Amino acid sequence: MVRSLALAHGQDVTDTLAAVGHEFAAATAVTRVDEAPDGTVTYATEVHDGWDIGGVANGGYLLALVGRALVEFTGRPPLTVTGHYLKPGLPGPANVTVTPVRLGRRLATVTASLRRGDDELIRVLATCGAASDEPAVLVDGAPPALPPYEACAPTPRGDEPPFPGLNDRLANRLRPGDDGFRTGAVSGRAELAGWFAFADEAPIDEVALLLAADAFAPPIFNLTGAPGWVPTVELTVHVRARPAPGPLRARFHTHFVDGGLLSEDAELWDSTGHLVAQSRQLALTPRP
Amino acid sequence: MVRSLALAHGQDVTDTLAAVGHEFAAATAVTRVDEAPDGTVTYATEVHDGWDIGGVANGGYLLALVGRALVEFTGRPPLTVTGHYLKPGLPGPANVTVTPVRLGRRLATVTASLRRGDDELIRVLATCGAASDEPAVLVDGAPPALPPYEACAPTPRGDEPPFPGLNDRLANRLRPGDDGFRTGAVSGRAELAGWFAFADEAPIDEVALLLAADAFAPPIFNLTGAPGWVPTVELTVHVRARPAPGPLRARFHTHFVDGGLLSEDAELWDSTGHLVAQSRQLALTPRP
Repeated sequence: MVRSLALAHGQDVTDTLAAVGHEFAAATAVTRVDEAPDGTVTYATEVHDGWDIGGVANGGYLLALVGRALVEFTGRPPLTVTGHYLKPGLPGPANVTVTPVRLGRRLATVTASLRRGDDELIRVLATCGAASDEPAVLVDGAPPALPPYEACAPTPRGDEPPFPGLNDRLANRLRPGDDGFRTGAVSGRAELAGWFAFADEAPIDEVALLLAADAFAPPIFNLTGAPGWVPTVELTVHVRARPAPGPLRARFHTHFVDGGLLSEDAELWDSTGHLVAQSRQLALTPRP
Repeated sequence: MVRSLALAHGQDVTDTLAAVGHEFAAATAVTRVDEAPDGTVTYATEVHDGWDIGGVANGGYLLALVGRALVEFTGRPPLTVTGHYLKPGLPGPANVTVTPVRLGRRLATVTASLRRGDDELIRVLATCGAASDEPAVLVDGAPPALPPYEACAPTPRGDEPPFPGLNDRLANRLRPGDDGFRTGAVSGRAELAGWFAFADEAPIDEVALLLAADAFAPPIFNLTGAPGWVPTVELTVHVRARPAPGPLRARFHTHFVDGGLLSEDAELWDSTGHLVAQSRQLALTPRP
């Protein structure tokens, strides 16, 4: 059973980039340990156990781990973050290096790398900086229509194989029918929508959006009915705003599966109906 | 007047990565000049005049210039390429450095940088490697409906201000009505579709897709009717296949304009109706 989740209305999120005391903050904590002459800063961190899919750290979690270092380094929220996935992330001590590319007044571009021992897990290229207060000029899209959070079924816990450990940390809930890939009653559409939330009700900051963009089952599962390993080659997240308190509405969609590759697009909307992130990844087609 | 364009049916494209003798090949030529102990290879090149918008090199052209070096370095076509734009690209001698990240059997991940004098113009993170021969499993989308190439109006030449120099190199043709931003009779939709082709009928290889993904006017112009400078922060292109001969069908769409930022999605389809590239960029909203 997933813990009940109270909507975090009224919660103070002005400094949730720290969000101390919550599991996600702890699992993405970074400590500055060194600065090289070229400006590269090394942060000690850890790939935490329990944010995994079958023992391998979730790709969104790894991107968020780097994202925390990006925020520490630039003093700004992530704006557009691209990660290329190099090796499966196993739990253990790790480090993130961040190297400046161009630190401007509004935008700061950096590269970063997450390494565990001799293994580089992901390489990242990112530009950080907050969106302005300018109001929306065009919103050609809408949050997915979902029953209220409480009316959607909890996601099975990670201690019930084959469900990932990630499910223990999150309290995501899928739109009724979109969990067909678990039972074999697939919708026949490569789409999946639902609510994103942390199991411990942690506020969802900009860094958490990097996790959320990869924290649901691949929508292709609802087309093929054949869950398997879908290795991400590259994931890009555009962070468009800090979310208002409360669970996010998420919609994942795969449009093109061809040549052994698939794209996966996601939109994340906050509780006020504001688009807070868009993402796209390129992945290899599922392997059993 | 744009030169008439014969469809390149039957043209041999098995080795168009070189495509010697065509303007695009010349404008993206790179020459290996150095290799550092860490494996970084430096290529001499030139930001060629005439691939510009108002004197500043088109962002897709700059990405293609780097793309050519990626192909030289990895011996593989680009698969997913992300560029972060740092400074406006003025014409002149330049160099591209390519640094290996992980060179695997199927995929090769590298970083690259385009520099002109002391200015770094773009930083790139890319994975190269060809799609497999596996057939399409899902195509949830279709090429835009367009009149035949010959029935669409030529794009005004670059020597007719204020039209960009890029128009001299390309023979793009917009869907009737999608050129409303030029006359003030905008469609009211942030969408734009048309044909992409080179003016000299050069074959369109994988590297040219990096150009094509940014080679049309921003679709936001058809919403706001207010052309201006739309600086790209980041552009990611997924190359899904080498195009069959002939002009491409392209569709550009902006869904979200908010917080001083806009996203722009593109799909490129070849003459056989095959999706050959998908792209998304994050840009600052137009400045007059």
